[in-house]
Order: sequence, then C-alpha cells, then structure tokens
Amino acid sequence: MREGRELCYFWDSLVAFTLREAQIEVLLGLRGGASGRGDDELEVSWNSSFGRMTVREELRGPAGAIAKEKRQRSERSEPPEVPLSGRKAGPSLHMAPGLSNEKKTEDGQSSRENSIHLCNPHLEKMKEDILYHFALGTSTHDFPALFGDVKFVCVGGSPSRMKAFIAYIAEELGLGSPGGDYPNICAGTDRYAMYKVGPVLSVSHGMGIPSISIMLHELIKLLYHAKCSNITIIRIGTSGGIGLEPGSVVITRQSVDATFKPQFEQVVLGKTIIRSTNLDEELAKELLQCSKEVNQFNTVIGNTMCTLDFYEGQGRLDGAICLYSEEEKLQYLKEAYDSGVRNIEMESSVFAAMCNLSGVRAAVVCVTLLNRLEGDQISSSHDILVEYQQRPQKLVGYFIKKSLGKV
Amino acid sequence: MREGRELCYFWDSLVAFTLREAQIEVLLGLRGGASGRGDDELEVSWNSSFGRMTVREELRGPAGAIAKEKRQRSERSEPPEVPLSGRKAGPSLHMAPGLSNEKKTEDGQSSRENSIHLCNPHLEKMKEDILYHFALGTSTHDFPALFGDVKFVCVGGSPSRMKAFIAYIAEELGLGSPGGDYPNICAGTDRYAMYKVGPVLSVSHGMGIPSISIMLHELIKLLYHAKCSNITIIRIGTSGGIGLEPGSVVITRQSVDATFKPQFEQVVLGKTIIRSTNLDEELAKELLQCSKEVNQFNTVIGNTMCTLDFYEGQGRLDGAICLYSEEEKLQYLKEAYDSGVRNIEMESSVFAAMCNLSGVRAAVVCVTLLNRLEGDQISSSHDILVEYQQRPQKLVGYFIKKSLGKV
Repeated sequence: MREGRELCYFWDSLVAFTLREAQIEVLLGLRGGASGRGDDELEVSWNSSFGRMTVREELRGPAGAIAKEKRQRSERSEPPEVPLSGRKAGPSLHMAPGLSNEKKTEDGQSSRENSIHLCNPHLEKMKEDILYHFALGTSTHDFPALFGDVKFVCVGGSPSRMKAFIAYIAEELGLGSPGGDYPNICAGTDRYAMYKVGPVLSVSHGMGIPSISIMLHELIKLLYHAKCSNITIIRIGTSGGIGLEPGSVVITRQSVDATFKPQFEQVVLGKTIIRSTNLDEELAKELLQCSKEVNQFNTVIGNTMCTLDFYEGQGRLDGAICLYSEEEKLQYLKEAYDSGVRNIEMESSVFAAMCNLSGVRAAVVCVTLLNRLEGDQISSSHDILVEYQQRPQKLVGYFIKKSLGKV
Repeated sequence: MREGRELCYFWDSLVAFTLREAQIEVLLGLRGGASGRGDDELEVSWNSSFGRMTVREELRGPAGAIAKEKRQRSERSEPPEVPLSGRKAGPSLHMAPGLSNEKKTEDGQSSRENSIHLCNPHLEKMKEDILYHFALGTSTHDFPALFGDVKFVCVGGSPSRMKAFIAYIAEELGLGSPGGDYPNICAGTDRYAMYKVGPVLSVSHGMGIPSISIMLHELIKLLYHAKCSNITIIRIGTSGGIGLEPGSVVITRQSVDATFKPQFEQVVLGKTIIRSTNLDEELAKELLQCSKEVNQFNTVIGNTMCTLDFYEGQGRLDGAICLYSEEEKLQYLKEAYDSGVRNIEMESSVFAAMCNLSGVRAAVVCVTLLNRLEGDQISSSHDILVEYQQRPQKLVGYFIKKSLGKV
C-alpha cells in the first residue's frame, strides 16, 4: 500500500470513525487479505457543512465494483494490483480477527470462495447472538446445519410473495416437497417470514429502508454464522415505472436517492455517513441475458430511485398530504427519467449499501406496476397485478436454474 | 388576519409550495374556519443551505398544540384569537372546497366536532380512491358504513399484536364476538392487517417510518372518506429504553430525531421539508393518569427518539456493521438521556407529523424491552416479552374504557 494514496486497501479490515464536532479521526485497522483475486478498496472522504458531518464511505469490492475498479486502473494506466496473499496486518488500534469466513484449501492456500465480511469487531466478543426479528439465535439454532448450503437469497417485501417464490423455485429445481408446504423458519415472530429449499433462501423484508435494513443486518449475520460463501442476494420487488409500459421489469444499474445521486445517507450516532449504492454490473448483465432467454416480458437495465415515502416522496397526488401541483410532479418525474431513472421503490439504496459493505454480490429486479407519467393509483385488476409480480420471480428463478446448470 | 404576521391562519386551507432552485413561492390558499374553538395556525419559514432547500412547516392545530399555542399567546401578551366563524376565504390560487368533513347543525352552525383535515386538494377531483396497501377502495367499499363510527384508532408494528389488541379491547368493552374471531379487514393484502370492534380500529404498520407513513396516508384518507370525527390515534409499540427498568412504559412528550430535535425531515420532490413532531400534551397527561389508576407498571412521560435504523442508527454494537466503540455508543445514549430521551423506536416522528397536519389527536405509548445503557440484545424470555408488550395495550384499553364512561 502506497502512503498518501486516497484509496486504502480494505479486506477483512476495520474502520473506526470518531466524529467529534469539527474533528474527524479516521482509524484504519488494516488486515492483509488473501482472496486470490486482488484486494478491495475503501474510499474515505469527508466534508463538514453547517455543523453536520458527512463521511463518504465507498467500498469497492467483491460486491460488484470489480469491473469499475479495473476500468479505473486502466484509465490511470496502472497495472492491476498484485494479490497480497499473506500480507501482514498493518498497525491497528482495533484488530478484528476472524471477521471473514475465509476458507483454506488442503495445502493451506486460500480458495477463491467469497465469504461474508462482517464490518463489526464487537460480534467476536459475544457468546451468543440473538437475531431478534428472525426469532433465531446462535445458542438455540445450528446455523451451519440449517443454512450452510445457501447460495442464493431472494428477498421481497411481501411474506406471501416470498412463500409463493419458494414453492415456485422448489418446483423449478425439482426439489418440491410432496405436500407443497414450506414451513416458515421465522415462525416465532411475525416481523419477517423466511423459507428455504436446497440452496435458495427466500426472506420477506416489509416496506421501506428501515424495515429491510433490520432484516439485512440479521440476514448478513445469519449467513456469516452459517459460514456461507459465494452468496448472491437478489431483491425481487414491485415498483412504479417511469416511461415504461406497466409490467416491464427493471434490473437496477444504480440505486439513486431523491436527488438522483447514487448514494445512501446512513445516520450513525446522530451523524450522517454517505454510502455507495453500486450494484454488481456483471450480475445485472447476466440477469438481462436471462430475461432475453425467458423472452416473456420487457426487461431493461436502468437506475432505480429509492425514496423514504410512497406518496409525497414519489410525487404522488393521491396521498393524505400533497402540497404541490401536477405540473411540479411531472417535472420532477421527467427530471428523474432524464437522469436515467426507470423505476421508483423504497428499499434498494440500503440494500445495495449493505451488500457492498458485506462483500455480497447483489442485484435488484423489480416489476413496474404502473407508468407514473400517466398516473398514481395502482388500478390494474388483481389478476394482472399478480401476473406482473410473478415476472421478477420467473426471471430470477431462471437465473438460479442456469447458475446451477439446470437449464 | 393581520398582514405581516409570521403565523398565518390555517383551517381547511391549502398551502402550495413551489420550490425552484433558490426561490420559494409560498401560495397560501386560505379558507375561513368555523370550528368554534379558535383557528389553527401554520408557521412557514425556510432557509437554503448548500443548494438544499429546507422548509419548516409547523401546524399548530387540533392535534395537540393548543396548549402550546395558548402559552405562546400568553408570553406575547396577546389576547386569544376571536373565533372567526363565517370568515370568508382569502384570495387563493388553489381553493380546495370540502376538504374537511365539517358537520353543520340544523341551524347551519358548525358543530364542535373535529373532523379529519386533508391537506390535498387533488383528492376532490378523483372519482375513485384506491387505498392500495389496504386493498380497499371507495368504489368497492362503503367507508361511512364500515368505519363511520370509529373514534379510537390504535396502531402498532406487528399484525398479530394488533389482532390480540382487538380481542382484548372487545372483551374489555363487552363487545366480544362469540367465537372470539375478528376478521382482517385488509385480508386482500399482506402489507397491513386491520381489525375493528365498535368504535375501535386496530391497524398494523410494520417497522420504520416509510412503512407507517404509507399506512397513515391511507388511514387518514379512510377516516376522511368515512366522515369520521373526534378521532384519537394512539401508537402502541415496543422500544428500547434509556435509563429505565425494562418493562417501563413511556408516553411520548415529543418525538425527536437522531440529533434530539423535535422535528421530522420529509423529502418532497427531492426537497427536504421539516415538520413538527409535537404530540397532544393533554392526551399524554390523561394517559399518565390512566396508568396511575391501572397501577401495574412503571410509566413515565418522556421524549422518544425516532431513528431510521435499528442497529447503527440506535448505537447498537451487535449489527452486521458497526464502526464505533462502546464508549462512543454510551456517550451518545447518555447525551440522548440528558436531552430528555427515555426511549428509542422507529415510527413516532412521522406519526406525530402526519397526525399534526391532519388535525388528529395523537399519542405514542411504548413499552421498553431493555435498558440500552446495559446492553443491545433483547434477551428476555418469550413470556416476559409477551407480558411487556401487553402493557401499552392495558393502558390504552383502560383509557378507551374511561373515555367511553365504562370505568
């Protein structure tokens, strides 16, 4: 690692921010990575405005920015980084041993498996970890036995849709149970529902950033405790489209905020940190190719706007509160379209940010239930909406089959 | 109305904001109110920082700030406002007739009933209103017949808890159904669950601000379409306590954000508007008095911090991501305590803001499942947690009984 370089290596490493009024201390605890395919990077920059501190965290790593990283290297005419196998830990105030489920082959070399990266050194000190909103815990459940074989995690807002998905994928993979019933693994709570068949886990996340954020914290810890590797997480959801025929499927290139920026503002101890919302470009392309092979509905790759509110936040005129005109709404939606936004939903930004930080390959695949340039109310018939909602399931189901060599 | 006064009368009126780069136009469409108990006020102020527009909206109205308003008048040595019965509409570009379910008595005078105030003129133009996330619509359901007698709405995160509450309150009010079963009015969807018995509606809202916000938009429209009046909405939930014995119940004085300010940032068409999160002081005192009469558990009035995240946002050390130390966490929680915060949850700010704007009396009553100064994991036994979760139900059940003269 060269001194003074703005990009710092980040692999199984820990960053501790101490934010105090006008001062920022960034404590970088670095540990040598040995993934065999180059190290990941954490970009840290910051600014302070009006007494409010903003820290930009951008992890470029296994979760999708590899292509971008290579492109940047090429633009800078730099050689690719030499894999730093066996690199020693740098000086660190907060060393976090064992925070990756890195696997060794018989000759002691690291394999190419991508394990879950927990950005939290405190967990190692805990004797037990209770995943409260899943009603699961490490001292009451054998996570490696229950979940160790998981390779694909599909998440979506509605519990019943995620139950329907597990039945669908079971059938597709030839793993259907005789009675066709799949027990809810989180039966001890009604916060989330979780189903599993073979290497596929299906989890509901409710609506909105906070709801999916709680689920993802506990899901990432679940996968870590289960020693899972090479995980792909895909959100299959519904959304409002912009300039697309209803029923079109959007694979998210970037999740953008309400000002069309590809970032997520996370408030940590009262301070705002900005996180990258990049998603895996290669995975998006693979999914688009799958859609061409399925050939049943229109699918595009585009940006997805993620909002904190369904009504005012998305410019709807039909909420209980609306203090703007139809012209202002349409201007906003057209600006979104011009910036590359093709659909609007409420979970993708924190989903992308957390998968990025945890080193998990991730994608967002949402069907559009209406064209927001033409209206706000979702007034299609129940049957049409049900068919629309099956489209991301079909696409992702085909992708999983293809990944497992079953197509 | 006096010209130049910073507070503008607001009753059945419409405010349209046009936000354009560095300019703000505030179009105030005013319509005379005739509530018989003084008019409500909307305070509008704004500032621009770093290209980001912030508009402060504060409605002082029937939803709980009457005492505060009176106090401010007293401090300014101003006489109380004379009720402006029959006041004519001022000049307005956007007149919104009929946006209140104002009731007239036989002699044409307005009664003292508090009806729902819809801050949205567009709804009047709609032939049909589909409440998508409730699976209800004005052309498929008779809202006045179904909901016209509702006086109390209790909302909480978990669908099963809200079903348990309706069974409990039915029993308490002597309205229990023979089989003890209460159908889910929103059976056509799994986004929310809704139950009704007599004048009490019980609705689940999921977790987090976006999830409760969608529910409240549709709930407020439901109550408006049903021509309900004199509504009290109470959130009965769970929370993390600060400096309180687990199992204590907190009645929220003010909902504050992660920087301990009593405000809610609502993003509208990409711009941030700040809304007041005041709650009804009198209602909070009534609830505290009820708790004394119930005399089964510790209850306090305190501030409630509302966050967008359960783990990093609340300073937990046990999430999948945690980049701060235990000392920093404790310092943050102690600062929260010193500012008057007694518990932390994830819905109260938008709940207060939307009830404020809609002229609905509102309160937040949450039990604390743990003391955050002593830990992060919710590790109490299932039975203890179930008993804790019944406490807000008991308190609010008693309040409803007392309000109906059944104690």
